[in-house]
Amino acid sequence: MIDRTGSLPHVVIVGGGFAGLYAARRLARGDVRVTLLDRRNHHVFQPLLYQVATAGLAPGEIAAPIRHVLREHPRTRVLLAEVTGIDVDRKVVQYDGGEVAYDYLLLASGARHSYFAHPEWEPLAPGLKTLEDATEIRRRILLAYETAERATSAEERQALLDFVVVGAGPTGVELAGAIEEIARKTLRRDFRSIDPSASRVFLVEAGDRVLPAFPADLGRRAEEALRRMGVEVMLRTRVEDVTPHGARLTGGFLPARTVLWAAGVAASPLGAQLPGERDAAGRVRVMPDLTLPGHPEVFLAGDMALCLDAAGRPLPGIAPVAIQEGTWAAENILRGAQGETPLPFRYRDRGVLATIGRSQAVARIGRVHLHGFVAWAAWLFIHIYYLIGYGNREAILWRWTLAYFTFERADRLITGGMRKAS
Amino acid sequence: MIDRTGSLPHVVIVGGGFAGLYAARRLARGDVRVTLLDRRNHHVFQPLLYQVATAGLAPGEIAAPIRHVLREHPRTRVLLAEVTGIDVDRKVVQYDGGEVAYDYLLLASGARHSYFAHPEWEPLAPGLKTLEDATEIRRRILLAYETAERATSAEERQALLDFVVVGAGPTGVELAGAIEEIARKTLRRDFRSIDPSASRVFLVEAGDRVLPAFPADLGRRAEEALRRMGVEVMLRTRVEDVTPHGARLTGGFLPARTVLWAAGVAASPLGAQLPGERDAAGRVRVMPDLTLPGHPEVFLAGDMALCLDAAGRPLPGIAPVAIQEGTWAAENILRGAQGETPLPFRYRDRGVLATIGRSQAVARIGRVHLHGFVAWAAWLFIHIYYLIGYGNREAILWRWTLAYFTFERADRLITGGMRKAS
Repeated sequence: MIDRTGSLPHVVIVGGGFAGLYAARRLARGDVRVTLLDRRNHHVFQPLLYQVATAGLAPGEIAAPIRHVLREHPRTRVLLAEVTGIDVDRKVVQYDGGEVAYDYLLLASGARHSYFAHPEWEPLAPGLKTLEDATEIRRRILLAYETAERATSAEERQALLDFVVVGAGPTGVELAGAIEEIARKTLRRDFRSIDPSASRVFLVEAGDRVLPAFPADLGRRAEEALRRMGVEVMLRTRVEDVTPHGARLTGGFLPARTVLWAAGVAASPLGAQLPGERDAAGRVRVMPDLTLPGHPEVFLAGDMALCLDAAGRPLPGIAPVAIQEGTWAAENILRGAQGETPLPFRYRDRGVLATIGRSQAVARIGRVHLHGFVAWAAWLFIHIYYLIGYGNREAILWRWTLAYFTFERADRLITGGMRKAS
Repeated sequence: MIDRTGSLPHVVIVGGGFAGLYAARRLARGDVRVTLLDRRNHHVFQPLLYQVATAGLAPGEIAAPIRHVLREHPRTRVLLAEVTGIDVDRKVVQYDGGEVAYDYLLLASGARHSYFAHPEWEPLAPGLKTLEDATEIRRRILLAYETAERATSAEERQALLDFVVVGAGPTGVELAGAIEEIARKTLRRDFRSIDPSASRVFLVEAGDRVLPAFPADLGRRAEEALRRMGVEVMLRTRVEDVTPHGARLTGGFLPARTVLWAAGVAASPLGAQLPGERDAAGRVRVMPDLTLPGHPEVFLAGDMALCLDAAGRPLPGIAPVAIQEGTWAAENILRGAQGETPLPFRYRDRGVLATIGRSQAVARIGRVHLHGFVAWAAWLFIHIYYLIGYGNREAILWRWTLAYFTFERADRLITGGMRKAS
C-alpha cells in the first residue's frame, strides 16, 4: 500500500490519543493528506479512565471512534492497524497488514505502565491506560466484594476487602479516593454478610509525599483529604513483591487480594526503533521543534516524546502537554510543507488538577493554588469543557448530577468471565 | 453454608433473569428468606441486547447489578456463584464455593444457544444471550468494516462487508435490520476505501417464513420491510456448515466473514439433573402449578420450563412468559409456606412485538395486528415502560431521540483485543 503518487504531502500519524488526534484535526485544515494508524478503533479521554475503573462512567461515555471524530475530513484516512516497525531511511511505517510511506511522520503512540523490571507483576496488579484496563480493574474491585460476601473465614474476608493502590500520582489518588467512596457509600446497603465500610484502601508511595508533581502544599492538602476519607496513605514505602495473596512492602506483607498499579510509565516500544537518545522510561529526546534529531520530517508528541521545558526539566505525561505538542507538531509539518522553517515548541502551562473524591480536589491554575470544593468545581468545569466532541457531555453531566446526590455508580458490571478474585 | 436454623422458610432461586428477579421481588414481600444465586452480578434486559450488539446502547444501559435491584429487602441475599448441582432428595443446591439448603427451590437459569449438534460452530457464529455475547458481536461487526478498509482485493473486501444472520425469529430480524442501518446510515461517511452501503445482510431461515411465532400476515409485513431496507431474506435455506470463510447453505457457499447465530435454544444444563420429562431443547416439563412432578417444593420458570398453554402448545421463550411464570411461582411458594394449595398458572398473552428498524416494527397486541410506524411506537413505549427500575430510562430515551434524527450509534467500541475478522 505504498502510494507516492498523490500530489499533496502525505503525513502518517501513529496513535490516536490526544497528541495524534489534535494533530490530525489541525492537519485536516492544511494542504496535506493524512493517514492515522491506531491499534484501537477509539480515542479515549484518559483523564476520566479512573471513573470507568470505578464504575462511575461507562466505557462508551469517555471514548469515541477515531474515524468518526475525523469523518468530516475527506483527505484524512484512518486505519485500524498494529504498527510493527518504522524505517526512517526508507520513510515507511510497517504494520500488521503491509506498509505505508510518508513524507512526514508524527509518532504519538503514548506509554504503558512500567513494573520496574518486574513484568510478572502485571497480571497481578493491573494498570490503567486503556478501556480494557479500566473494565478489568472494575471487574476486580466489584468481584472482590462479591467474593467477600461468600467468604467463610474472617481473614479471607478482610483480605478481599483490602485494596492496595501503588503510586500516589494523580491516577493513584483518584483511584484510592473513588474506591473508598464505593466502600463507604455506594455499596453500603447492598450486602448481607459483609460490611463494605470495613474495606480499607492503602495508597502506597515510594516517595515522601502524595502528588509529587504538584506543589508541596497541594500534596499536603490531598494527603489530608485522603486520610479524612479513610484512605491509609503509606509514604516512603516500596513494593518489594506482588503475589496473588497480596503485596510485600517495605515493612511487611499486606494480605490484600486486589492490588492496582499506578506507578511508573514506559514509553511505547516503537521509540526504540528510532536513532537517537532516550531516557530511562524510553521516551525519545526531541529537538525544540519536536523533530527527531537529524530527521526534520519525523516528529514526536505526547507521552513518548522527551521534551524539556525552559528550566531543562522534562514536560510531564499529561493531556495538556500531549494536546499542545500534537497541535504544534501539526503546525510545524504544515510550515515545512510550505517551505517555511519550523518553530520551537513552548508549553503553555495552564496548571494541573487532581480529584480526590466528592467535592474534593486540588488544583494549580496558573499560579493560584486551590483545594476542596472550589478545586473540585474547577476540575468538573474543565473536564466537562474538554469533553466537547465526545458527544455525550449531557449524559455525563446527568450521571454526575445523579451520582453527586445519590452516591450511586451507574456502571457496576462484572463482565469478561468469572475468574475469581481469590 | 447449610443453614437450616432460620425460622422462616428458605427459598433458593437459581438465576437472576426475568423469572428469577420478578420472583425475588414478589417473595421479598412475604414471610420467607430468599437466596438468589447467579453466575453474573447483573440482570440483563434481554429484549434490548441486540441494541448493544449493534452499538446503539452501552452494556450498562440495559443491565443492573442484581444485588442493587434487591438491596431494599433485608431477608434477600444475593450470591455470585456458579451452580454446579442440584440434589432434590437432600434439598440442597451445590455451587462452586459450597452448598445451600432450601425449603423451596425456584430454578430459572434460562437457556443458551443450540448449534444443532455442531458446537464447533459456536466460536465462528456467536449467538446473543449475554452482555459478553453482545460486545463480541459488536466487535465482529465493527472490525469487519475496519478490516475491509484495509483489504487489498475486491473479493476479500466484499466478504468482509457481507453478513449472514442465521434464524429469522425476533432476534435475527432485529439484528439484520440494525446491521443494514449501520451500513446504510451510521457508517456512511466514515470510510475512505470502502463504501459501507456495498455491505449486504443475508437473513437465513430454514422455515418458510420470517417470524414463525408471529401471525402469518405480520411475518409477511416484516419480510417486506426487511427487503425494502435491503436485507436479502433467504427462506427454506439451511446452514450446512460454518467456516472462518463463510457459511455453506442449501444451494451454495456464501463467503461472508461475519456469521451471527439467532437460531435454536437449549435450556440450561441444570435441567438435566432433575428427574422427569424434558423436550428436545432440554426444557423441563412442569405441572400446571409450575412445580416439578413429584416435587411440590421445586419450581421452574422462564426459558428452562416447558409449560403448555390451554391448547397444549409450549409457551414461547420470551420475557413476558418468564416474568409471569416467575411471579406466579413466587405466589405459589408463598401459598405453600402458609399451608395453602398452589394454583395452576395461566399465561396472560398480551401480545408479541419485533422491531425491524427505524420506524418499522410488527406487533400483535391482544387480537390487534399492527405494523410500520404504529407498531414501532408501541414497541418503543412498551420497552421504555418496562425499563422502569433500570435507572436509566431518561438516558436511553435521550440516546434514542438523538439516534432517531442522526442515525448515530453511541457505543461504537471495539474492545477485547485485536483478533482479526479475517
